[in-house]
Amino acid sequence: MTELPTHISLAHGNGGCRMRELIDRLFARYLQNPLLDTQVDATRLAWPEDELIITNDGFTVQPLEYPGGDIGSLAIHGTLNDLAVAGAIPRYLSLTAILEEGLETALLERIIKSMAATALKNNVAVVCGDTKVVRRGEGSGLYLATTGIGTLATTQPLGTEYIQAGDRVLVSGPIGSHGVAVLLAREQFGLSGNVRSDADSVLPLTQALLDYSGLRFMRDPTRGGLATVCHDIHQSTGLGIRLQEALLPVDAAVRSVCDMLGYDPLYLAGEGRVVAVIAAAQASAALEQWQSLAQGQQAAIIGTVSADNQQVILETALGGERLLQQLVDDPLPRIC
Amino acid sequence: MTELPTHISLAHGNGGCRMRELIDRLFARYLQNPLLDTQVDATRLAWPEDELIITNDGFTVQPLEYPGGDIGSLAIHGTLNDLAVAGAIPRYLSLTAILEEGLETALLERIIKSMAATALKNNVAVVCGDTKVVRRGEGSGLYLATTGIGTLATTQPLGTEYIQAGDRVLVSGPIGSHGVAVLLAREQFGLSGNVRSDADSVLPLTQALLDYSGLRFMRDPTRGGLATVCHDIHQSTGLGIRLQEALLPVDAAVRSVCDMLGYDPLYLAGEGRVVAVIAAAQASAALEQWQSLAQGQQAAIIGTVSADNQQVILETALGGERLLQQLVDDPLPRIC
Repeated sequence: MTELPTHISLAHGNGGCRMRELIDRLFARYLQNPLLDTQVDATRLAWPEDELIITNDGFTVQPLEYPGGDIGSLAIHGTLNDLAVAGAIPRYLSLTAILEEGLETALLERIIKSMAATALKNNVAVVCGDTKVVRRGEGSGLYLATTGIGTLATTQPLGTEYIQAGDRVLVSGPIGSHGVAVLLAREQFGLSGNVRSDADSVLPLTQALLDYSGLRFMRDPTRGGLATVCHDIHQSTGLGIRLQEALLPVDAAVRSVCDMLGYDPLYLAGEGRVVAVIAAAQASAALEQWQSLAQGQQAAIIGTVSADNQQVILETALGGERLLQQLVDDPLPRIC
Repeated sequence: MTELPTHISLAHGNGGCRMRELIDRLFARYLQNPLLDTQVDATRLAWPEDELIITNDGFTVQPLEYPGGDIGSLAIHGTLNDLAVAGAIPRYLSLTAILEEGLETALLERIIKSMAATALKNNVAVVCGDTKVVRRGEGSGLYLATTGIGTLATTQPLGTEYIQAGDRVLVSGPIGSHGVAVLLAREQFGLSGNVRSDADSVLPLTQALLDYSGLRFMRDPTRGGLATVCHDIHQSTGLGIRLQEALLPVDAAVRSVCDMLGYDPLYLAGEGRVVAVIAAAQASAALEQWQSLAQGQQAAIIGTVSADNQQVILETALGGERLLQQLVDDPLPRIC
């Protein structure tokens, strides 16, 4: 086991193997307890007569506003989605805001309004909060940290441990849109682009699948994108995943920006998509269910869990195979 | 009503009236819902068959380590204490860490170990977490955000709304120690000092008073210190508070640093103290109960709630009276 580097780098926050190492070898090592599972995004807690699910997230996206969203709506969606993919109904949120001296009040007001509208639309309440201000030059305008709690909405056991060879991998819609929208808003590429963030609550999508007995696992592909979700599955189960490039939904505008700039949409974040793993026999029915929803019209069965090849493989449109490596350096930091 | 300033300043994070304005006029205004009460530090939530209490906090203290503690133990203590003063038993915590690129790994390791030890000692578990990394120059090493949930441990209604004229004000121990410890660790005054932060769980102190029917209200005097707690009471109730300077417990070393540097310990943070308001008839018994605990040996009855003079007044040791103003500018930022 190699030593951790002596200093933190941006790669420690990117969702890939460096972050995993950091979490395993510092956070999980010292903070370990039976309930803390650093492999999942939401935690199920025994509670008298009921179970609650809790999750938390930090948000440091730059810029604070971008086409299709802002750090405030992102914080609400991101937290709700972590609860939703765990099979929960989101109920309550806490909110910590770390403001930088010099932040424009009007900008903060827009963001808080956006947050409030997103919470209202999704039937959740921010029930406690805290604010800190740091000196100019010790932040980047605004950081948010949210914790969400919800009630478990299913008796269906969900988790990578239930995944079996032969299961199908579904995605609820085009990948990478959030990452590209933030990229275009941040960088000066001279591209105008029509890409909007896909940030949205995935609760309708997750609720639609909870009655399927063959449902094994759901996750929202945010930091690190779809490829990172597949790697997490591979690492937890030891099983391989084969994805078909031709079946992957990617918006044309996202595809062309990625082609021009050399990004791979498989590693870019969405903030309103779900990856689901489901038994092969129920995959078509689940797909139809998703496609009947406004958010799932472009849903697709994109791959298969395989016992044969214990890697994450992309079968390309041209008939070749490409090994999808685990993310090491960050293709696009600060997107959530 | 004056306009909010166009830009955020450090005073917006200091616990005083500027922060109050910011919270009332932006956060509370837009995020309002029946459960969100920006006047309290912990939120009680109806839950099937039980009630849980949730609180959250952000931590941006500089330096990250100081005599008597560090940002990690502070985050645990601060969160537990907000639950404890609400009459709860802390159970679970979520933790968001915002790391700055370039943070020394060994320092982070010390802080996480400290956090783990503090959680273990206080019988709480960090049950979910999230990590983000921001660019060098966009943080100050490490920011933490925690959310804590606990179970309500009393049927005694607590809150400023139960405070009556004639009630007594108690404090569990010397004030201002955390603020001065952080100040000395941060600034280059050439003072070595023997001041350690008082950061600790106040749960034994709060539990000791929960059986008193005359207990009205408890709070830990952190940002803004004891004077700010008194102002919060004054503003919520319309009642005055008269404090006796001669009765205020202040460590000699804290007093001498404050005298030299021109700080007032009444406005400096503690992180292991409780201010309690209790009916006059039960104040002596409550005081004895506190004094019987290791943490409460220097507890004192320091003042009285008064209907006559609707201000916060300090009766000085020399027989004069001093009006304790509400905090406007920050005497000592970044102490929690």
